[in-house]
Amino acid sequence: MAMKQAATAAIRAFSSSVTSQSSPLVRHLHASAGSKKIVGVFYKANEYAAMNPNFVGCVEGSLGIREWLESQGHQYIVTDDKEGLNCELEKHIPDLHVLITTPFHPAYVTAERIKKAKNLQLLLTAGIGSDHVDLNAAAAAGLTVAEVTGSNVVSVAEDELMRILILVRNFLPGHHQVIKGEWNVAGIAHRAYDLEGKTIGTVGAGRIGKLLLQRLKPFNCNLLYHDRLKIDPELEKQIGAKFEEDMDAMLPKCDVLVINTPLTDKTRGLFNKERIAKCKKGVLIVNNARGAIMDTEAVVDACNSGHIGGYSGDVWNPQPAPKDHPWRYMPNQAMTPHISGTTIDAQLRYAAGVKDMLDRYFKGQNFPAQNYIVKEGELAPQYR
Amino acid sequence: MAMKQAATAAIRAFSSSVTSQSSPLVRHLHASAGSKKIVGVFYKANEYAAMNPNFVGCVEGSLGIREWLESQGHQYIVTDDKEGLNCELEKHIPDLHVLITTPFHPAYVTAERIKKAKNLQLLLTAGIGSDHVDLNAAAAAGLTVAEVTGSNVVSVAEDELMRILILVRNFLPGHHQVIKGEWNVAGIAHRAYDLEGKTIGTVGAGRIGKLLLQRLKPFNCNLLYHDRLKIDPELEKQIGAKFEEDMDAMLPKCDVLVINTPLTDKTRGLFNKERIAKCKKGVLIVNNARGAIMDTEAVVDACNSGHIGGYSGDVWNPQPAPKDHPWRYMPNQAMTPHISGTTIDAQLRYAAGVKDMLDRYFKGQNFPAQNYIVKEGELAPQYR
Repeated sequence: MAMKQAATAAIRAFSSSVTSQSSPLVRHLHASAGSKKIVGVFYKANEYAAMNPNFVGCVEGSLGIREWLESQGHQYIVTDDKEGLNCELEKHIPDLHVLITTPFHPAYVTAERIKKAKNLQLLLTAGIGSDHVDLNAAAAAGLTVAEVTGSNVVSVAEDELMRILILVRNFLPGHHQVIKGEWNVAGIAHRAYDLEGKTIGTVGAGRIGKLLLQRLKPFNCNLLYHDRLKIDPELEKQIGAKFEEDMDAMLPKCDVLVINTPLTDKTRGLFNKERIAKCKKGVLIVNNARGAIMDTEAVVDACNSGHIGGYSGDVWNPQPAPKDHPWRYMPNQAMTPHISGTTIDAQLRYAAGVKDMLDRYFKGQNFPAQNYIVKEGELAPQYR
Repeated sequence: MAMKQAATAAIRAFSSSVTSQSSPLVRHLHASAGSKKIVGVFYKANEYAAMNPNFVGCVEGSLGIREWLESQGHQYIVTDDKEGLNCELEKHIPDLHVLITTPFHPAYVTAERIKKAKNLQLLLTAGIGSDHVDLNAAAAAGLTVAEVTGSNVVSVAEDELMRILILVRNFLPGHHQVIKGEWNVAGIAHRAYDLEGKTIGTVGAGRIGKLLLQRLKPFNCNLLYHDRLKIDPELEKQIGAKFEEDMDAMLPKCDVLVINTPLTDKTRGLFNKERIAKCKKGVLIVNNARGAIMDTEAVVDACNSGHIGGYSGDVWNPQPAPKDHPWRYMPNQAMTPHISGTTIDAQLRYAAGVKDMLDRYFKGQNFPAQNYIVKEGELAPQYR
């Protein structure tokens, strides 16, 4: 792959910028001296593991930190076996100190597991999005939960723009014709549009939402965003996006709606039947945030009725999505498994970020402030 | 569809800008008084025709100009039957005055057909790209060939960016997993990358190439372009793209290569085995220009060997692509039928452009200068 070298160069730049933010703050999270037991739960790559030397995000790649950890006397267990009472993860729950998980193959860290994990101090998310952890239970137990904020925001924003184009331009029916030996331009063209001139709204304009809006800027669309906070006026002006204080008032204006909000108690099931009904007929929806922000059946019904004209995303509830998940079979879907934040470039960045936090943990240093989801029992503001 | 109204508004703006460029120049192309026979060859929509009132690019939609033409006493025949000596088109060749064709379902206007077409004066392309016309034969016969320059450049540029992302991010294997009931993140992630930081080169930086480069700007890539001419320095600086005078020197630098050159005698078969070998191993190629710019078998061989890491485009040689066209079956292809320039928005624009040129033809006025491919027997510079 031509891409391999470019990806490695990019991560070198990111990695050094992360580690140079070394914190002068006092020590909060104590890693008592001696060997730690660290467990990582990642997706397994099998035959794909050897195909790319930068493929560090899988079980086999183990974030590329085994040698570094073991040379310091720590124990490092890595598995993809995460479900049920007899799984590999469950065996290590009673005595692990650090658990590294990822949104792409989420180990669900329930209140029960937290209760059993007597030695647990630190939960690290290799990536962004820690909703697979029961954050209230983690906070009650005084744990720290942190993720590699920023590690894959570009990856996800790019992927969202790809999905917007795939839906607006009706790409998939054309590709399916090709592989079926067909040729029927009308079957594609009757509902293929330009993105130019359309109205795109994002629910949430945090790190990813902003990057998406910046990338949409040259497409000459009408850009809207809803969030708790307005974007910095300078950036807002540069992007040319309009703030919508009332989400429900924004929905009927949007040809394309993008979900860019974390999954919290407030956003779980946010897009239910009633809220989808407020969207424009034929709305195209992109959701790379979290599957549970949508009411699964309401999405299926609206795709079937045509009220949703197309739905694309890489997040499901639960993950991995079972074979009979209805989003696999609804019309006009452009779904994939959870992938947008685990490009090779993103893997190299979040592996570097996890290593950096482990290093700070061993040394009793603070993490970069924006990485904390729960800091020694205290939830970050957006999760309260 | 939410999109319908937005598309109609956009075309109103475009259409009025086209017709306001009314030319004060002297009459060159004479439409002698009286009824003209006008034939249009488009793709047939069948059951899709009634699904969208703006679907004017198909046989059934007939560019939306039937009433207007017939009210002026002209005859307007429309068909999709374009091949062989017994086809509908062939019946009308001897006495038609104007033939309207489209690149999406090309009626091949050969020297033989031109010879038979004793009354033919004007060949109009609904869209961009008139290589399905034997331009030398048309010039020798003193004909005028014109297209609706600019009508779908945005449509094609957007589509190219979509295809770049689809290849770089390895979208299709993930989507195929979804519809097959599978979930294997590693099978996608081991060759999925961010676009950020990669080197993108375009062969050709005319109207479409420039629009693509502008849209790529916020992705933070290294942008290169090869063309006969340098882009205007102001625009070049704004986009941040670097001029490469020698195409063969540019090829080994590119992670992604985009073809944006017309099909001419000089570009036919330009990407043969030798030239593909000059590209970086694993190069991703997007070609929405013309299929015949590539050596068909050389592309297949390089996709099979992995020298080409992914190939996406909507253009084939010939069109419609037969069931056994090898590009349907090569690995890592993200092909569609010829669709990128025939979105609903583009159809409305090229329909308005064709109507404008017919109106000028009836009135003995010049067309917008940039529309001419052959003007009364004289080839435009890029085709000489």
